Amino acid sequence: MAGPETPKLMVDVVVPSQEGHILLIRRASDPYEGQWALPGGFVEVGETLEEAAVREAGEETGLTVDIVRLVGVYSDPDRDPRGHNVSCAYLARAQEGEPEAASDAAEASFLDPSTVELAFDHEKIVADALSGDAPLTY
Amino acid sequence: MAGPETPKLMVDVVVPSQEGHILLIRRASDPYEGQWALPGGFVEVGETLEEAAVREAGEETGLTVDIVRLVGVYSDPDRDPRGHNVSCAYLARAQEGEPEAASDAAEASFLDPSTVELAFDHEKIVADALSGDAPLTY
Repeated sequence: MAGPETPKLMVDVVVPSQEGHILLIRRASDPYEGQWALPGGFVEVGETLEEAAVREAGEETGLTVDIVRLVGVYSDPDRDPRGHNVSCAYLARAQEGEPEAASDAAEASFLDPSTVELAFDHEKIVADALSGDAPLTY
Repeated sequence: MAGPETPKLMVDVVVPSQEGHILLIRRASDPYEGQWALPGGFVEVGETLEEAAVREAGEETGLTVDIVRLVGVYSDPDRDPRGHNVSCAYLARAQEGEPEAASDAAEASFLDPSTVELAFDHEKIVADALSGDAPLTY
C-alpha cells in the first residue's frame, strides 16, 4: 500500500459481565506469554476498527460481542515490546454464551480484574473503560 | 518493523477560534487538491498521536496548538482514496498568532466551516468535534 510507514494499528476489547467481571484471555505466546490480557489484535486492511474488535473477541474467546463505545486510543511508543503498536480500545457487551479459548489464547474467562496482573497497559485500559461517563448496563 | 500490515494511521485536528471558525488548510496536492481540509497527516513511528497532531498543525499552519481531547476514530476503508487510512481526530486550542500556510498547505485560515466544502470525511469530524459533551471554551 502506498504511503509512509506509520505505527501499526491494533484493537483491544473490554467486555464486562453482568457481575462486573472482565473477559480476559491468557496469552499463548510472547510477549507476556502466560499472562492475562484483554482480547485484541492487529487490524486488517479493509475492515473498520469496530469490525476488527468484534472479529478478535470472537476468534480468541468464541463469544459474539456488540460494540458499545470507544474507550480511548493508546499510542505510547513503549507500550508494546514488539514495536510501536497503537491500540484503539472499545467497550463491548457479550451475547449469550461461555468463553472458550481459541486462536492466540490459552484460556478465556470472565475474571475480577483486580485479582490478576494484566499484560501491556491493559490495567489502564480497563480502568478507563469502567470510569466512563456512560457505564455499561445490561 | 515486525508484524502484519495494518491500515495506516493519521491524525486530524479541529481547532476552533474564539469566534467559532475552524482552522482549515487548502490542499496543495492530490487527493482533493485545492479543496479545504483539516490540518493533519500521517503519524510517524515513535511519536504519540497527540505529538503527531501538534506537529502536523504546526507544520501546515505555523500555529502551536494544545490538545483538548480525542474527538473520535474514523476507520471506514473508503474514507481516503489513497488507501485504508485510519484517522484519529483531536480537538485542540490554538495559541496566539495568525495562521500561515506551509508544508502541504496552499493556504491556512480560520473559516466558517458551513461556507466551504471539506475534503475526505472532515465535515463529519468537525460536526462530531463541535457536538461534544464538553464544548471548547477559551
